[in-house]
Amino acid sequence: MFLKAFEIARGIKEGSFTASEVLKKCFDKIDETDSDICAWVCLDTDGAMERAKILDSIRKSGKALGPLHGVPVGIKDIVDTVNLPTSYGSDIFADRRPESPARIIELLEKAGAIIVGKTVTTEFAFMKPSITKNPVNINYSPGGSSSGSASAVAAGNLPIAIGSQTNGSVIRPASFCGVYAIKPSSGIIPKFGVLETSNILDQMGIFANCLEDLALACDALSDYDSRDPNSRPFPSPVLSIALSKAPPVEPKLVWLDLDYLVNLDGAVRTGFDQIKDILGNRIENIDAREATKKLVAAHKTIYEYQLLENLGPINNQNPSKMNNLILEALSRAKSITYNDFKLALEIRAEALSFFESLFLDYDAILTPSAISEAPLLDENSTGNPICCTIWTLCGLPCFNIPLLSGENSLPVGVQLVGKFEEDDRLIRTANWLQNFLTEKVADLNLLK
Amino acid sequence: MFLKAFEIARGIKEGSFTASEVLKKCFDKIDETDSDICAWVCLDTDGAMERAKILDSIRKSGKALGPLHGVPVGIKDIVDTVNLPTSYGSDIFADRRPESPARIIELLEKAGAIIVGKTVTTEFAFMKPSITKNPVNINYSPGGSSSGSASAVAAGNLPIAIGSQTNGSVIRPASFCGVYAIKPSSGIIPKFGVLETSNILDQMGIFANCLEDLALACDALSDYDSRDPNSRPFPSPVLSIALSKAPPVEPKLVWLDLDYLVNLDGAVRTGFDQIKDILGNRIENIDAREATKKLVAAHKTIYEYQLLENLGPINNQNPSKMNNLILEALSRAKSITYNDFKLALEIRAEALSFFESLFLDYDAILTPSAISEAPLLDENSTGNPICCTIWTLCGLPCFNIPLLSGENSLPVGVQLVGKFEEDDRLIRTANWLQNFLTEKVADLNLLK
Repeated sequence: MFLKAFEIARGIKEGSFTASEVLKKCFDKIDETDSDICAWVCLDTDGAMERAKILDSIRKSGKALGPLHGVPVGIKDIVDTVNLPTSYGSDIFADRRPESPARIIELLEKAGAIIVGKTVTTEFAFMKPSITKNPVNINYSPGGSSSGSASAVAAGNLPIAIGSQTNGSVIRPASFCGVYAIKPSSGIIPKFGVLETSNILDQMGIFANCLEDLALACDALSDYDSRDPNSRPFPSPVLSIALSKAPPVEPKLVWLDLDYLVNLDGAVRTGFDQIKDILGNRIENIDAREATKKLVAAHKTIYEYQLLENLGPINNQNPSKMNNLILEALSRAKSITYNDFKLALEIRAEALSFFESLFLDYDAILTPSAISEAPLLDENSTGNPICCTIWTLCGLPCFNIPLLSGENSLPVGVQLVGKFEEDDRLIRTANWLQNFLTEKVADLNLLK
Repeated sequence: MFLKAFEIARGIKEGSFTASEVLKKCFDKIDETDSDICAWVCLDTDGAMERAKILDSIRKSGKALGPLHGVPVGIKDIVDTVNLPTSYGSDIFADRRPESPARIIELLEKAGAIIVGKTVTTEFAFMKPSITKNPVNINYSPGGSSSGSASAVAAGNLPIAIGSQTNGSVIRPASFCGVYAIKPSSGIIPKFGVLETSNILDQMGIFANCLEDLALACDALSDYDSRDPNSRPFPSPVLSIALSKAPPVEPKLVWLDLDYLVNLDGAVRTGFDQIKDILGNRIENIDAREATKKLVAAHKTIYEYQLLENLGPINNQNPSKMNNLILEALSRAKSITYNDFKLALEIRAEALSFFESLFLDYDAILTPSAISEAPLLDENSTGNPICCTIWTLCGLPCFNIPLLSGENSLPVGVQLVGKFEEDDRLIRTANWLQNFLTEKVADLNLLK
């Protein structure tokens, strides 16, 4: 594991080391691992080193330091950068160089972070596996679509990487690679300058090695940007303040029985049974099996309908350039009517109001981050995103906490899902849960 | 004086009152004063009340509150807003309604502020007086060009208003109206969506009733926005943290002798002589008279050259619509060559490096905010901006502290000027100076 982001920012502030030294270690580590892992599309070696020098001179001059001062960050290659091409994982855009950066790049730079390079994404953030391998065991998939960002953090290349999720593209790879992740409430992190596949479902996410770093990065990326239709002109939760506080009362969790959980892998099921045992009456069960199919179908309708709006014109101009999985989805989408789409939005609205009520009684939903460990590369799949679909549909905040492991000793994540725009309360609950579980048991099949 | 911004945010947080109650007081006060003062171009009564209700519901639901939660803010009418027209004080743009807000509007809304309305600006932020009057005495000018913003705060309409300064348009009206103001380092507050008269010289500023409120608002408005060429991708100073700390050693100030200070009004001179006496060896004198003319001329060259670039095309399309002072400036500008402009930029660069050295030895320059008290309305002038010209040219951070008064018992401000991008150190020094002076003397001709 690389130094954590908060350790880097603190160490630079205290003069224990410089941003340039940290960055050199980051590039050394990438050199060491990336021929095996293939997490990176391209690196901005010179630009990053130059920026590190400026950040060090700011430190020497006594000027203000940022919360991510000197912290190396990797960026999923669907996020516009000016120094490096942004290719969406597609040959069509191999040399695409936008004139202005995505808003989140500006926010990271304002916080003092250093953009190291672009991480591998699956083609157009869709389901076909990329070249990236899982650092825990390179015979396995890192998941998708934010494959490179999850792998880069898991490989100890750097402390923070940025991904995005339209279905399960942050929480799933985090689960497979054994790193922490947040997919904040929809709208908290602005998407201006990020590939649009579905403006309703697309949401940014962050990979890191601890909750503290997720809080630091998420706070730096929270913003109101009127160019993002989901961004709202109101204050955002501040995660780092919430994280530093204990919950006012012991949190109450809920386990939703959902159709797809019958497919939970044996060891994963055992892990969650253990956790529920330990939690005792701190967790309750609610049967939500009836709603599952409707919600998952609504997600699919919204996604494919909007995918056709966004990728259809590109496909028309560049025939036979996209992979078959995308082409099949675009083809399916042609038979989705506007009424189907509207109906799916209504189902989503109902679900949103269900969850508003649910979180009056519970602090968080406890649920697996994935059905199983990572699939073998041979299976030619980025794994099943189903454990994320409903939360993504509703834009609810989600954390992956890498607490469990499966039959092949690969990581499996515990997912916590919270009330819309109460990401602050959710990180407090996540911290409580992690401490509670690791204090209570030594014999849980815990990763760390 | 209206409630201070920090008192409003705290009171709403603690449940002492609601955003809606505060806003109602703000509109009542505007109703009461504005027929005399004429600080407002237009008000967003309904939109603001609706927003206050939402902010109150956020408070009730226990969601995150912003640092300016429920704080009413006034906006100079050269800043783009979506709910209200943005007319630049010109008939040409009487009904101009931009499609997207200025970046600073987004930043204020993210912080929880409520945009109350647009404040009067002089036409294109130039020198011809507007209709606004000085709330201290309505026979006098409030200064310009941010006339309405200074007057609205001085009239107790609200705690914070936003202005801009290309020469002396923030610090001078603050001095005349007896309110606090900051004109931060160039680039700290992004200008995207604000009328451009000179991209080198235009800088945003803030009016308030205390240093705490300036710190809150300036921190909320600090940002990196690549659409503003002066905005930089590095951390900004955090004023509220600096303000909460005492200087590590007693600050050392410097008084620069400058040509124009021979014209200081008698009572103003006496006031500053008193302050220098009290400071004793905490302030040193440097003769900078030789440089004055060159720097003031460089400012004029850059300003008028860029004013022609920006307003020239508008004037060509709308002949005889601008006031004579602007037309004369545009006419003068036609004889400024590109070489003149480049030479002026070189003089500016030399001055910048002079100030970088100067601030190795001193914490701040102490200097008047204006030559005199506000002029009478009859004089048909917004007053002399000369006391601001050099600092604006160099983009240095400036504060107005309303400590003195002149012969007619009108306010005169003490100006503190600091090192580029060390606005945090400067507010700490400003706070120290204010405490030092008010503790040491009761018999200074202090305003408050």
